[in-house]
Amino acid sequence: MAPVSSLPLHDLAPLLLRCERQHSNVDVEVLANALRGGREANRRRKLMVELVRRHPVLSRKDFIHQNHAERCAAGLEKAYHYIKLVQNEGIEDLRDQQELYVALGERLPLEVHRAMFIPTLENQADNQQQAKWLPLARSFKIIGSYAQTELGHGSNVQGMETTAMYEKETQTFVIKSPTLTSRKWWPGGLGKTATHAIVHAKLQIGGEQKGVQAFIVPLRSPETHKPLPGVEMGDIGPKVGFNSLDNGYAVFHSVRVPRMNMLMRYAKVLADGTFVKPKNSKLVYLTMTQVRAYLILKLSFILGAATTITTRFSAVRVQGRKANVNDEASSLTEENQILNYQNQQNALLPLVALAYAANFAGRAMTALHDGAAELVKRNHNSFTQISEVHAVSCGLKALLADRVNDGIEQCRRLCGGCGFLQSSNLAHLFAENVGACTFEGTFDVLVQQHARFLLKAQARLSQGSENETMEDETPTSFLRYTTLYTDPRLRCNAHRAEDFGNFHVLTDAFEVRAARSLQRLSKLMTESENEGNPCMVLMTSVSTHHAELMLLKAFISGVYSLPAGKTKAAVAQLCQLFGASLLVKGLGDFRRHDYLSSAQGEMVRQQLQKLLHPVRRNAVRLTDAWDFSDFELNSAIGRYDGDIYRALVEEAKRVPLNAKDVVDGYDKYLRPLIQSSM
Amino acid sequence: MAPVSSLPLHDLAPLLLRCERQHSNVDVEVLANALRGGREANRRRKLMVELVRRHPVLSRKDFIHQNHAERCAAGLEKAYHYIKLVQNEGIEDLRDQQELYVALGERLPLEVHRAMFIPTLENQADNQQQAKWLPLARSFKIIGSYAQTELGHGSNVQGMETTAMYEKETQTFVIKSPTLTSRKWWPGGLGKTATHAIVHAKLQIGGEQKGVQAFIVPLRSPETHKPLPGVEMGDIGPKVGFNSLDNGYAVFHSVRVPRMNMLMRYAKVLADGTFVKPKNSKLVYLTMTQVRAYLILKLSFILGAATTITTRFSAVRVQGRKANVNDEASSLTEENQILNYQNQQNALLPLVALAYAANFAGRAMTALHDGAAELVKRNHNSFTQISEVHAVSCGLKALLADRVNDGIEQCRRLCGGCGFLQSSNLAHLFAENVGACTFEGTFDVLVQQHARFLLKAQARLSQGSENETMEDETPTSFLRYTTLYTDPRLRCNAHRAEDFGNFHVLTDAFEVRAARSLQRLSKLMTESENEGNPCMVLMTSVSTHHAELMLLKAFISGVYSLPAGKTKAAVAQLCQLFGASLLVKGLGDFRRHDYLSSAQGEMVRQQLQKLLHPVRRNAVRLTDAWDFSDFELNSAIGRYDGDIYRALVEEAKRVPLNAKDVVDGYDKYLRPLIQSSM
Repeated sequence: MAPVSSLPLHDLAPLLLRCERQHSNVDVEVLANALRGGREANRRRKLMVELVRRHPVLSRKDFIHQNHAERCAAGLEKAYHYIKLVQNEGIEDLRDQQELYVALGERLPLEVHRAMFIPTLENQADNQQQAKWLPLARSFKIIGSYAQTELGHGSNVQGMETTAMYEKETQTFVIKSPTLTSRKWWPGGLGKTATHAIVHAKLQIGGEQKGVQAFIVPLRSPETHKPLPGVEMGDIGPKVGFNSLDNGYAVFHSVRVPRMNMLMRYAKVLADGTFVKPKNSKLVYLTMTQVRAYLILKLSFILGAATTITTRFSAVRVQGRKANVNDEASSLTEENQILNYQNQQNALLPLVALAYAANFAGRAMTALHDGAAELVKRNHNSFTQISEVHAVSCGLKALLADRVNDGIEQCRRLCGGCGFLQSSNLAHLFAENVGACTFEGTFDVLVQQHARFLLKAQARLSQGSENETMEDETPTSFLRYTTLYTDPRLRCNAHRAEDFGNFHVLTDAFEVRAARSLQRLSKLMTESENEGNPCMVLMTSVSTHHAELMLLKAFISGVYSLPAGKTKAAVAQLCQLFGASLLVKGLGDFRRHDYLSSAQGEMVRQQLQKLLHPVRRNAVRLTDAWDFSDFELNSAIGRYDGDIYRALVEEAKRVPLNAKDVVDGYDKYLRPLIQSSM
Repeated sequence: MAPVSSLPLHDLAPLLLRCERQHSNVDVEVLANALRGGREANRRRKLMVELVRRHPVLSRKDFIHQNHAERCAAGLEKAYHYIKLVQNEGIEDLRDQQELYVALGERLPLEVHRAMFIPTLENQADNQQQAKWLPLARSFKIIGSYAQTELGHGSNVQGMETTAMYEKETQTFVIKSPTLTSRKWWPGGLGKTATHAIVHAKLQIGGEQKGVQAFIVPLRSPETHKPLPGVEMGDIGPKVGFNSLDNGYAVFHSVRVPRMNMLMRYAKVLADGTFVKPKNSKLVYLTMTQVRAYLILKLSFILGAATTITTRFSAVRVQGRKANVNDEASSLTEENQILNYQNQQNALLPLVALAYAANFAGRAMTALHDGAAELVKRNHNSFTQISEVHAVSCGLKALLADRVNDGIEQCRRLCGGCGFLQSSNLAHLFAENVGACTFEGTFDVLVQQHARFLLKAQARLSQGSENETMEDETPTSFLRYTTLYTDPRLRCNAHRAEDFGNFHVLTDAFEVRAARSLQRLSKLMTESENEGNPCMVLMTSVSTHHAELMLLKAFISGVYSLPAGKTKAAVAQLCQLFGASLLVKGLGDFRRHDYLSSAQGEMVRQQLQKLLHPVRRNAVRLTDAWDFSDFELNSAIGRYDGDIYRALVEEAKRVPLNAKDVVDGYDKYLRPLIQSSM
């Protein structure tokens, strides 16, 4: 081994990462199988990633050098090759297709066709409509968008202005955009790609309003791709993320579509203009609930990627002298790995833990959803479980979309200047995912839905009607703890810092907090006569407290599901750290009614600090367990082998500006200054 | 007036903003003068903005459609026109030049030439060097960069690897990059623009190390602009922000510069190789301290802009029905302005307040700095005040860089989908400013400097040596409160929610918290034998608590400085809200040792909620007071007149993708799919 001081940093970096892996007992494979839904699922996922990595077009990741128009052009090219790859390789399993799509690392103009257009046809078109449209859509002879949001209204669907008037004589609907703000705004692929859209509009029959319905509207000529008469369309411009696709706008100037273009699985319009109401309006929300449940799992992988990059970087980056420390890396360098700094640990490790918690919660939610959906399929009136999935997924999605994206940005800052470089890929991860704070329901809307559901369930529970779920659709059993913790004299019984590593002590604290906020909300809602707005801040707390409890419980269950051994112990520590970090962050809430005393508050802080060191020891392997390839991470500073400095230098060589020695504007803008009097 | 339900949203929006302004008594002009440093300074600022707005090139803001290479090209063009404008209009006052530069809304390739290269020559070059280099630099016959940071080391200057060996025979320094990681990395303008750089390197004379010194190194041929022999340079690639400039790298292969190219105002190398040590090393930090003090003020304007955009958008955007409310806007619409939602107020209004607090604190810091610098100029040993400015500006910069940028991102999310669009300009504001979390000292480094300074000052204070500032340079008077609040039995004496609107009650709480953390840190540092790392989390708290106290005090002083009346009362409420929001956020800390009881914790929450309504009433005018023109805000959704929907539609028309009806890739990638079997 070279003497400590003479080892160049770029040779030191890989050794430091190897050293980290050597000094941890975590079994990466066991954990990877847990985080990736089993060995077989993970194997298939990797096959899909490999198909993309080996593809000459799909493997391109030069998007950081491109503007919006260039990215859309490249997105179209990739969409074509994605479809061809799926067709040529005969990839029929939808999960495989999904993994293939995720491996691209960016969204394509056919995003909405895949994720919304086809599923909506599957859920809301009747059999005859499905027979006509699904084969066209699945073979990409039509490409669909999903046009709900308008310029003037997003969250509030009732405020929608687009109209569809039924004309009995011609058996057509006339679709109109009556105002400037009624134009459809945002639909992915609508700008330049889509040939058709499912357009939501207010149905009017003979002067009567029949509510918002969905219509299949042809947009572009199948011969020329030009907009059809009466349809005015375009791209709405560059965004924070999603720049490889053409989010668009559309204005409808009395566009006619046949009666059979209204999706008629539930509501129907007969030839004579008779409106048939849907039997059960809740079925329409099934797609949304499914999307949200799976989004939670997806968010866990995003934060998994960001924490992997940041942990590796923190292990190989050295800055400043070590003070009186003789650690594992001491034979390699006298400088301190930034992962050794308390502040770095204190910021990063709770995010490593959050990604795990989100994964376990995502697994629980998707399992609950799939079971509940199966139940609905067998019995259309069996909504007990799906309403719970709906409400809890609202709360978890609201919380995690914010926390995960804040976490990515925190990771980026923890990488200093290197994080500010696009070649770290952290900014791209953020940009492509922060939209989740808005789409599929904005934070404020979702926390209210979650809180109102909890209120309703709790009210039924306290009325002792727990077992009457056959008639009422509100499940209550998962809220039983709320009846146990209403006594304000209740106190936490921890005596030492380590007591806060006990999962029961942790769970109790989170349950007490959640139960008490719900109780306060119930009181405040009564006072406000059920008006939501004056209770909104409290509703947010109720939703957050319940969602954090769900995360903690899911994490603890996840720990118990692992085989006994050192790996389980390491994940248990990570779970303890997760609980302690949330306790410290929310100390003002946990100390309400002095459930925690001032002294216990200090104990929690101590416990968090104590856990930093052992968790830091396993941090590299705990993030290795997400099992991302370098191709997927696409980060110069997050490489598995730690060879980050050579990678950064290589990345710089690929910068288009560096193709020429002398910059283009020199003659016109620099020489006149520099040589002004020579 | 049109009946409520028939007013189109795009006509409603401007009326709503007018309505907001009608129902507030805040005098915008009085406040604008306070926030902008006086009427005259504001008048001159607006003149500069107007010069940019009327300029055919400098007024362009099409950067959201450009990639990094295109933005750099446009940046070079703007740099040329900026210089010509300054020269042709004879704008000599540096503050005017600065306002002109800020009005551009993006950074240019000459950023570092202006902000670092010239000031470093002014501070660290000796008279002879200044006579040679300054006229060249000021007339742009040379364009300079500032090359300190390397690929391997940023924060830790001692880890720098670039060497400068003195060769007595030729009286030259030989500059070398001995390793891959020693390459200079990050300097702005270095990639393609700069002709010279001030390069920091480790000086070696006759085998002896003489510490890091600064050297003027010519980089490119004055005739061809090609890199000079031995210099290897390029752009480091796209970043989160700063994409209109060429942050670069440089490798030096034994590049020779004459002895007189080392900056010699302080340290010197004589012809025979004798090294003359600087008399006072602290003078070198003067530039840094100045940059940081002014950065605080700058950050306030950035958040001022973001909160202006978001407040206006929140006032004109309606979503959802109002419940039993008859407010000022009821004659205009039955829908709820999103500014009426409690969650929106609870998230946005504390940011409106933070921007004000940062402004008042920035004014205080720059005044303190300018006074202290004047003192240093008169007496080179008078460092008492400058060391306080240095330390406190470290703490405030660390806190505000994070909070302001988190605030911009929060604002962006509060605008939902419209915030996700680049035409809102919120993402651009974030991208161009979030680098402040890293440059001029990263968070972790700055909070430690701040905390260690406070420890030292407090130690002197408690030793009773308060008046001996002539010998020791640590000032202590501003920390006197720390001696008053060490008794853990001390309790807050608020009895009702309103008591937390009392500035004394607020200040006391912040002083107690700051004093106690400092006391804890002092104890922990003794236990750790002055080793920083185990105390880093606590140091961060100490710095944050002290910085928040400074912000609160500056805000309160700011309130007192306003003329009595309704405007002052409105700002006082904003200040109360600022205090209450920080109290709620930090309740876990304020409740330590039960300084606040559980009941008082509830009172603070109540007080915060109570303040939301009156502050919301003035929110539009309070943000109007930043006095930004629409040109400066550059936001489709932040227009002064509220006509946001037409603006969004107009912005979409300018999207390059919309120039053609049929997208470029259609023939190659879409038609083959769509017409596959036709």
